[in-house]
Amino acid sequence: MKATAIGHIIKPEDGGIHIQMNPTYWPGTLELDKFSHIIVLWWITGMDNDEARMHLQNYPPIEGAPLSGVFASRSPGRPTPIGMTTVKIVSIDSELHRIFIDQIDAIDGTPVVDIKPYIPFSDKVDRAKVPDWLKNNVPRYTDHPLD
Amino acid sequence: MKATAIGHIIKPEDGGIHIQMNPTYWPGTLELDKFSHIIVLWWITGMDNDEARMHLQNYPPIEGAPLSGVFASRSPGRPTPIGMTTVKIVSIDSELHRIFIDQIDAIDGTPVVDIKPYIPFSDKVDRAKVPDWLKNNVPRYTDHPLD
Repeated sequence: MKATAIGHIIKPEDGGIHIQMNPTYWPGTLELDKFSHIIVLWWITGMDNDEARMHLQNYPPIEGAPLSGVFASRSPGRPTPIGMTTVKIVSIDSELHRIFIDQIDAIDGTPVVDIKPYIPFSDKVDRAKVPDWLKNNVPRYTDHPLD
Repeated sequence: MKATAIGHIIKPEDGGIHIQMNPTYWPGTLELDKFSHIIVLWWITGMDNDEARMHLQNYPPIEGAPLSGVFASRSPGRPTPIGMTTVKIVSIDSELHRIFIDQIDAIDGTPVVDIKPYIPFSDKVDRAKVPDWLKNNVPRYTDHPLD
């Protein structure tokens, strides 16, 4: 079960965060411009070692968070060191094979292993239950922060 | 960049779809019961071959869908054959290391490589733009299908 790098996260000092796609895989972005958001799957290379991959519990860095299993947190140290971030597409440069995005919690140079379009049918949960320590955590992509 | 199987999807004939966790990784589920939904990452073993992994464009199986890149679709044939499904937790059996879920578009025996809690802050997009052919595609987890 080997992941393939289809591109890399680039974070220039002057902004303009983007995914620099490997040109081989560029045909896979056809019609991507019809979506506003994508889910980026990336490899947490800094945590790809035996010790971090067997680190199964931790304290999420939020006040009041209890000791939690990695599958109940977004901790980067996990058995399969894969990161997942929903981001907004800012623009697409077909000539340079770049997908500009608004933000991502991955460092410069991180391999991207997959991109999926954000589809409300399967990806949007309106009334997800979360633990109390996450209750004041307002969705990033909402027009109704006080709902 | 090797993915680790932390468990497998089990789909008994009489229902009761669940993730049978590898006992080694069970400690990673601590506090998972505080969340209503999880995002399951699974390996599309049937598509883990050179041909399917280089299949970069296809027609999504929805009326009116144009030829689309795999990164603009949820096609199982993709460079990194990883599936991602948001599901509802039905119940958790700590003794048998099972996480019962309501549905998943993976076949019986599929390796699960990661589980992430669904956190609205990062995972919920209220007004995602999608192509016209997906516009009538109502979110699965909504109380307001007519919004």
